[in-house]
Amino acid sequence: MKNADKPSMQVFEQLESEVRSYCRSFTTVFSKATGAKMWDANSNEYIDFFAGAGSLNYGHNNPAIRRKIVDYMLEDGITHSLDMATKAKESFLTTFDETILEPRNLTYKVMFPGPTGTNSVESALKIARKVTGRNTVISFTNAFHGMTLGSLAATGNGYKRAGAGVALGGTAFMPYDGYFGDNVNTVEYLAKMLEDPGSGVETPAAVILETVQGEGGLNVASRQWLQDIEKLCRKHDILLIVDDVQMGCGRTGTFFSFEEAGIKPDIVCLSKSIGGYGLPLALTLISPKYDIWKPGEHNGTFRGNNLGFVAAEAALAYWKDDSFTRDIKGKADAIRSTLNRLIEKMPEGSVKHKGKGMIQGLSFTEPEMASKLCGLAFERGLIMETSGPFDEVAKLMPPLTIEPAVLEAGLKILEGCVDKLAAKEELVGAGQA
Amino acid sequence: MKNADKPSMQVFEQLESEVRSYCRSFTTVFSKATGAKMWDANSNEYIDFFAGAGSLNYGHNNPAIRRKIVDYMLEDGITHSLDMATKAKESFLTTFDETILEPRNLTYKVMFPGPTGTNSVESALKIARKVTGRNTVISFTNAFHGMTLGSLAATGNGYKRAGAGVALGGTAFMPYDGYFGDNVNTVEYLAKMLEDPGSGVETPAAVILETVQGEGGLNVASRQWLQDIEKLCRKHDILLIVDDVQMGCGRTGTFFSFEEAGIKPDIVCLSKSIGGYGLPLALTLISPKYDIWKPGEHNGTFRGNNLGFVAAEAALAYWKDDSFTRDIKGKADAIRSTLNRLIEKMPEGSVKHKGKGMIQGLSFTEPEMASKLCGLAFERGLIMETSGPFDEVAKLMPPLTIEPAVLEAGLKILEGCVDKLAAKEELVGAGQA
Amino acid sequence: MKNADKPSMQVFEQLESEVRSYCRSFTTVFSKATGAKMWDANSNEYIDFFAGAGSLNYGHNNPAIRRKIVDYMLEDGITHSLDMATKAKESFLTTFDETILEPRNLTYKVMFPGPTGTNSVESALKIARKVTGRNTVISFTNAFHGMTLGSLAATGNGYKRAGAGVALGGTAFMPYDGYFGDNVNTVEYLAKMLEDPGSGVETPAAVILETVQGEGGLNVASRQWLQDIEKLCRKHDILLIVDDVQMGCGRTGTFFSFEEAGIKPDIVCLSKSIGGYGLPLALTLISPKYDIWKPGEHNGTFRGNNLGFVAAEAALAYWKDDSFTRDIKGKADAIRSTLNRLIEKMPEGSVKHKGKGMIQGLSFTEPEMASKLCGLAFERGLIMETSGPFDEVAKLMPPLTIEPAVLEAGLKILEGCVDKLAAKEELVGAGQA
Amino acid sequence: MKNADKPSMQVFEQLESEVRSYCRSFTTVFSKATGAKMWDANSNEYIDFFAGAGSLNYGHNNPAIRRKIVDYMLEDGITHSLDMATKAKESFLTTFDETILEPRNLTYKVMFPGPTGTNSVESALKIARKVTGRNTVISFTNAFHGMTLGSLAATGNGYKRAGAGVALGGTAFMPYDGYFGDNVNTVEYLAKMLEDPGSGVETPAAVILETVQGEGGLNVASRQWLQDIEKLCRKHDILLIVDDVQMGCGRTGTFFSFEEAGIKPDIVCLSKSIGGYGLPLALTLISPKYDIWKPGEHNGTFRGNNLGFVAAEAALAYWKDDSFTRDIKGKADAIRSTLNRLIEKMPEGSVKHKGKGMIQGLSFTEPEMASKLCGLAFERGLIMETSGPFDEVAKLMPPLTIEPAVLEAGLKILEGCVDKLAAKEELVGAGQA
Repeated sequence: MKNADKPSMQVFEQLESEVRSYCRSFTTVFSKATGAKMWDANSNEYIDFFAGAGSLNYGHNNPAIRRKIVDYMLEDGITHSLDMATKAKESFLTTFDETILEPRNLTYKVMFPGPTGTNSVESALKIARKVTGRNTVISFTNAFHGMTLGSLAATGNGYKRAGAGVALGGTAFMPYDGYFGDNVNTVEYLAKMLEDPGSGVETPAAVILETVQGEGGLNVASRQWLQDIEKLCRKHDILLIVDDVQMGCGRTGTFFSFEEAGIKPDIVCLSKSIGGYGLPLALTLISPKYDIWKPGEHNGTFRGNNLGFVAAEAALAYWKDDSFTRDIKGKADAIRSTLNRLIEKMPEGSVKHKGKGMIQGLSFTEPEMASKLCGLAFERGLIMETSGPFDEVAKLMPPLTIEPAVLEAGLKILEGCVDKLAAKEELVGAGQA
Repeated sequence: MKNADKPSMQVFEQLESEVRSYCRSFTTVFSKATGAKMWDANSNEYIDFFAGAGSLNYGHNNPAIRRKIVDYMLEDGITHSLDMATKAKESFLTTFDETILEPRNLTYKVMFPGPTGTNSVESALKIARKVTGRNTVISFTNAFHGMTLGSLAATGNGYKRAGAGVALGGTAFMPYDGYFGDNVNTVEYLAKMLEDPGSGVETPAAVILETVQGEGGLNVASRQWLQDIEKLCRKHDILLIVDDVQMGCGRTGTFFSFEEAGIKPDIVCLSKSIGGYGLPLALTLISPKYDIWKPGEHNGTFRGNNLGFVAAEAALAYWKDDSFTRDIKGKADAIRSTLNRLIEKMPEGSVKHKGKGMIQGLSFTEPEMASKLCGLAFERGLIMETSGPFDEVAKLMPPLTIEPAVLEAGLKILEGCVDKLAAKEELVGAGQA
Repeated sequence: MKNADKPSMQVFEQLESEVRSYCRSFTTVFSKATGAKMWDANSNEYIDFFAGAGSLNYGHNNPAIRRKIVDYMLEDGITHSLDMATKAKESFLTTFDETILEPRNLTYKVMFPGPTGTNSVESALKIARKVTGRNTVISFTNAFHGMTLGSLAATGNGYKRAGAGVALGGTAFMPYDGYFGDNVNTVEYLAKMLEDPGSGVETPAAVILETVQGEGGLNVASRQWLQDIEKLCRKHDILLIVDDVQMGCGRTGTFFSFEEAGIKPDIVCLSKSIGGYGLPLALTLISPKYDIWKPGEHNGTFRGNNLGFVAAEAALAYWKDDSFTRDIKGKADAIRSTLNRLIEKMPEGSVKHKGKGMIQGLSFTEPEMASKLCGLAFERGLIMETSGPFDEVAKLMPPLTIEPAVLEAGLKILEGCVDKLAAKEELVGAGQA
Repeated sequence: MKNADKPSMQVFEQLESEVRSYCRSFTTVFSKATGAKMWDANSNEYIDFFAGAGSLNYGHNNPAIRRKIVDYMLEDGITHSLDMATKAKESFLTTFDETILEPRNLTYKVMFPGPTGTNSVESALKIARKVTGRNTVISFTNAFHGMTLGSLAATGNGYKRAGAGVALGGTAFMPYDGYFGDNVNTVEYLAKMLEDPGSGVETPAAVILETVQGEGGLNVASRQWLQDIEKLCRKHDILLIVDDVQMGCGRTGTFFSFEEAGIKPDIVCLSKSIGGYGLPLALTLISPKYDIWKPGEHNGTFRGNNLGFVAAEAALAYWKDDSFTRDIKGKADAIRSTLNRLIEKMPEGSVKHKGKGMIQGLSFTEPEMASKLCGLAFERGLIMETSGPFDEVAKLMPPLTIEPAVLEAGLKILEGCVDKLAAKEELVGAGQA
C-alpha cells in the first residue's frame, strides 16, 4: 500500500499552531482523494475509514455532486449571500422539504445558523431558552456538541471543557443510556431529579442528546430509552433537541438517526454531511410553534454558503427512495460480522463491539490498544481514529458510499492489524485487567 | 435598472425560520453575480455596496480565484480534511507567510479554528484566558465579535445579547475611542479602572477590539488611541486581540487594519474575506510565545476547508505589491468626496460622515433616515445596509475590486436617493432634533 | 393548654415584609420562654419541638448560660470586636479546643466568618476553591446550606434557588445516600462521574454534605456511605466539608454529627446552637494545612459577637463528660419508640419514620398530612414544623435539654393529633396513593 | 496612656485562622469597654475612633440600652425566634415606624434578612431581580457591599473579590461621583451606557450605592449626583438601593445618610448600628409595591435576634427629636477643623481631607503614611483604621455619642502622631510624588 516515503511535515510544524491534532496521528501530506480513497503527496494510497469525522458520507469528490457545484460556479451562481434569498437556497429548501421532511411526516422550519455544527447547537440552545424562559439544559455523560462556549458547556469531555478558561454554566449532566450498566434505568434517574423539587436541578429548557454518541465512544441509545426521554420531555414541557450533526445524513442507517425510535424532536441539529461534499453547512430544524426568533437574533456571515446548498441538494438524490438505506444496511452488516469475527480472535473480555450502522468499533479494556491499532492501520494504509473518554474505541466510519471491494480491502487491513496486536499478546482480558 | 417584477419570496416565508433578516430588506431572489454586480431571478440588476458584509472584498465570482478552485476540484484535490495536512493548506500557509506576515515583519502561528469569525474569536478568547489564567476580557461599547456564547459575551448589541437566554459573563465593557466626545480620553478611563484595585474590574486576560467598528456604526479608532491601548496592555501583561474579521483583508486600506497604527497585536482574528471567494474560512494568528494549545484543545469539523485554502491563496496575489493598496485608496477618496458633497446638500447637523477606507457611511441624526435611504437605494438597484446601535448609519462597503465605473454608477444612485430624501424635507438638523 | 385568645398579628401584617413565614403557621405573638416552653402575649403556653430550627439545643433562656452573659455585660465586657482579640474569644477558643477538639483527636484552626450558617458555608466554599484552584463543588439532592448566593448554589430546594434571580453556578448535584432506593449505591454513581473524564463533571474543589439532611426531610446518611465519600475525596484530593450547622452541637447524639462514622472532614461548618443561647455565632473549622487565607480575605462585621463567645463557652460545659450524650440517647430512644407506636396506629404505608437522635419525624405518603398534623399540634400547644421537598415530614426537634416530663407531655399531644388525623381517615396507605 | 505590657496573642496565633486581620494591627487582647474607651487585659486604655467599623455608633456598653437588654433577658424574654412574631419585634417595628419612617415621610415594609449587612444586601439584590426580571446590578467603583457571593459581586475591592474562587457575575461597575475628577459627570457616563443599546450593559435590575463610601476611602457623593442617579433610575424603571449599613444610623449626621439629598430609595439596607449595642441585626427596607416576596423565599436562622430588637428599639430613643443630629454636627465640625489644621501642618499636596459627618479622614499621597499614622496612634492609645483602595486614608469614626472631652483627647493624640510623622519628613507633596 505504501509506495514511497511520507512527505515532510515541516511547513505545518513551523507555521501552524500547536493546536493541530489529526496531522500528528496521520503524519503525511494528503493531496488527492476520491470516494473512500486518499493519496498523499508522494502517491501513497489510503483507505478512508474516518470520512471527515462524518462529513464525507457521500465520499470524497463525489462526481455527481461535483458536477453540480462546478456548473453552478461557472454560470456565475451566487456563492455567498448572508441570508438573502437565492435560487440555490430556494431549490435546496424545496428539495429538502420534499425529499426528507414530507415523506417522514416531519414539519420543521429550517434555520441556517452559520455553517458548522457548533453554530447549529448554539442556535438550538438559544431558541430553547427563549421559548421556555429557562436557563438549564440537560446534557448527557460523554456528549459532544461543539467547542464554542454555549455548546462546549453541553459537552462532557473534561479536556475540551478545560480549554474554555471560564466556568461553563447552564447545563446539568445526566447519565446516558446504559451508563451504570443494564440494571439502572437512567431515564428514571433523570425523571426523579426533575420531579423532586429539592434535587438542585431546575426544570430545564431542553434535553439535548445524540442517539449514538460518536466522540463519546459509540454508545447507542436504545429505542426504548429515546422514547422514554421524549415522554419525559413532553410531560414537563421540556424541548427535545437531537444533535444529529454526526449521526444524521444516514450514518446510522436512516436519514435522521432518530427515525427508528419513532420520536419527533422539537429541534434537530444538522451539519457535517448535510453539505454533501464536505462543504461547511449547517441547519437547525425547528418545530414551527417554537420558531419565535426575531429577525437576525442569531446570525453568521457564512450562513448563506450557496455552494453548500447546491452540493446539499445534489446529495439528497441518494434519499429519493430506500435503496440507499438498504445499501447502508448491507455494508453495516458486513462490518459487524467482521468485527464479531475479530473479537473472537482476541482474549475474552479484552474487547467489545460498539456502535451501529456505519459507525462501529472495537472498545478495548486496555485503552491504549485502540491507539496502537489505529497506528498500525495507518502504517498499512488505513485511516481510522479512536474515540471514547479514554480513547479506548477504535472506530470505523467509512463513507456510506464506499465501494464494497474497498470496504472489504479496508476490513482486511484491519484484520491484519488485529492479528498483529493479538500476536504481541498485549491484549488483556477483562478478568485480568 | 429594474427590468421586471421581483420573484416570489414564498418558499422562504414558508420553509425558512423567522430568524432570516436581510431577505426582508432585499426582497428578491438572487441568482447570479459577478464583480460588484448581482442579478435576481428575473434579471433585475443590482450594484453591490454590501459585499457580503465584508466577505467579498475581491468581488463575486472573481474569475482568477474561481479558476484555481475549479481546477483543484477537477483534479480530485482534497476538499475536507479536518486538520490533517494537505498540499492546499501547506501552500496557503507558505504563501500567507511570505506575502503577508514576513513583509510586515510579523511572526504568528496560524490556527484554523473552524471556518467562521465567531470561531476565531472564541479560540482567541480561550487561548488568552489559558495563557494568563485570568477570566475577564475587556471589550468596547458597540463592539461586534460574534454570536456564539463566548464571542457574544464580548458583543455590545443588546438585542443580540438578549438572544443568549443566559447571562453572558467574563467580559467588561469600556468606552471605545471617542465614546464621550473629544474631551474624554477613554484610554485614561480604562487605565484608571485597571490600576485602581477597588474598581471592580479585574486585570483582564485580554483586550479585544476592532480598529473600526463596522456593525457598531463605522466608529474609527485613532492611531494614538490604538497605540495607547497597546501600551496599556504591555504594561499589565494583558493580551491584545484585534478582531480583523471585517476590517482585515484590505477593507480599511491595508491588509491588516492595524498596520497604519504600527501596533502588533498578540492575537489577530481573520475570517470573511480571507476565504477569497466568499468561502467559509477563518484564521486565528497567535504570537508564537502564546501558542500553548494542547493538541485538539479547540477544534471544529470544517477547520480544514481546502477550497477555502485554495481560494485564499489565490486572493493573496492581490497583495504581492502595493498596487492594490493604492487602488483602494483611490476608491476610498472617491467615496469620501462624494459623501462630503452629499452632506453639503443636507441640512446642517442632520448627517455626518463615518468610517474609513472602503467602509464609509452617513450617520443620520434621525436614525430612521438611514433605513429609508437604504430602502430607496434598493428600489433603484443599489444594495446598502445600515449599521450602528440605532441603525442610524447608511453604510457603503463595495468590493475592493469594484470597477471605477460601477463605483461611479453606485454613487450616482446614492446621490439620487439623497436628493429625494432631502426633497421630502424629512431631514432634521442637529439643532432641531 | 390554651388560656386565652391569641394576640393580634396586625403589626406584622402591616409593617413586616411578605417574606415572613413561620409567623404564618404559628399565628401568635410570643413573649416569654424558658427551657422547652414558650408563652405568647396572652399567656398561652406551648411546648417547643422546633428549638429555633436547631439553634436552641440548650433550651430557651438557659439559666447557667444567661448568668454568664449578664455578668459579662454588667462588667463592661467587650460586646462587639470585629476580629480584634478579646478575653472572651480567647477563653472560648481555649475551652473549645480542650473540651471539643482535643478529646476527639481533631485539629482545626477556628475561623469566625460572620455569625450565621450561610456565612460559614460561604467561607468554606471559598477556602476550598482557593486551596484547590478548582471551581465546582459537589452538593447533594435535598441539601440545605444557606440563602446567600454562594451557599444557595449548593442548596437543592428549587423554590429557594429561584429566589436568587440569577443563575446559580459552581455546583453539581449528586444523589444523596439512599436517593434511588436501597439497590443503588450512590457513592458509586459519584465515583463514576468523577472518574470518567467525559462525564461533564469536573473534579471538584470539595464535596459538601450534611450527615442528616434536616430541611431535606430528615434523610440519614449511613456510616458506610460517609466513609466511602471520605475515601473518594481522599483519592481525588477533594476537600470534604461537613455542614454541621443544624446537626452539630449534639443534635444527632454526639457533638459533631460525623463522630459515629469516624470520618475527619477537612472543613466543618458550625452555627445555630454553637452560640449556646440562640445568639448569632458561626465557626468554620479548617484543617491547618488548608488554612491558607490571607488576612481579611473573608470577613464580616459581626464575626466578633462576644456575647456569643461567652454563651458558647458556657454551653460547652455540657460536653465536659459523656453524661449529656447519654441523656440525649435516652430521649432519642423515647421519641423513637413513641413514633414507632404511632406509625403502628396508622394505615400501613401511609407514613414512615425518618431521622435520628433528637431530630426525628414522620414522613407521610400524602404530603399535606404533615402540615395538617403540625397545624393540629399548634392548636393544642405544640410547636412542630414540616420539612422535606414536598413538606411531607412532620419533624420533632426539641431542645436537647428538654425535661423528660415536658418531652412526655409533648409526645402525648402529638399522639392526640395523630389519633385525630387517623380518625378522620384521611391517611392513605402506600398501595392506595 | 500605656499602663503595662500588652497581653500575649499566643492563643489566637495558635488556634484562630490565618484570616484574622484587625488583631494583627491592634496587637493586644481587649477585655472591657464603655462609651468610646476600651481597655485591654493589662488595663491599658484606648480611645476608640473605629467604633466597630460603624457598629457602635452609640458607644460600647451604652448603659441605657444595656439595662433594657438585661431586664429583657432576666424576664425570660424570647431570645431567638426565627421569624415568629414576638413582643420584642412588634415593639421594635412600631417604634421604628413611628420614630424613623413616619417623621421622614417614608413608607417601607421591613424585612429581617439574617443579622448581617451582607444578608441585607443579598436580599435586596434578590428582590430587585425578582421585581424586574433582570439580571444585572450596577455597582460603583470602590463600593463595599459584603463578602458572600451575591454582595461580593457588587464589591469593588479586587483582593476581596479574588477570594471568591469563582467568577463573580451579575454586576457592572460604573464610576462613582468624582471618579474622574471634577470635569467628568459620571452620571452622564452611566446614562450613556444605559441608553445606548450597543453599550454591552443591559438595563439593570437595580443601582446599588453608598452615599459615602467608607471602605472605599470616604468618598462622598454630592447631593446633585444622588438626585441625578435617582432620576436616571426612575426614567428606566431601575430600582435604587441605598446600602446604608455603615453610613446609616447617624454616621453622616442624619438617621439615613440620604436624607439630605432628598431622595427616596426603593430599598434600603441597614445593619451595623441598627442593632444599637453591637448586636447582630439587619433590616432590608422595601418599598411596599416591590415587597412581592413569597413566604420564606429568603430566610436565615438568626433573622429573629430578639436581643437585637430590644437594643435597637432602645437606641431609637436618640432619634426622638433633633438634638442628637445637632450633637453629631457639633462633633463633626470639631473633627473637621482639627483635620484642616493638621493638613496645614503637612507639606502641600501630601494629604487631603475626606469624608463627612462622623466619618472623616486624611488621604495621603503616599499611601503607606496612612498605615504609619494609624500604627503610631495605636502605640499612643488611639484606635484608628485605614481605608481606600490603596489603604491611603486614615479614618476617624468614633462613636457618635463620644464625650466631647474624649473626642478632644483622641484628636490630641492624633495631632501628636501627625507631628511626629511630619518631623520625620516622610511626607511627600503631590508635586514630588
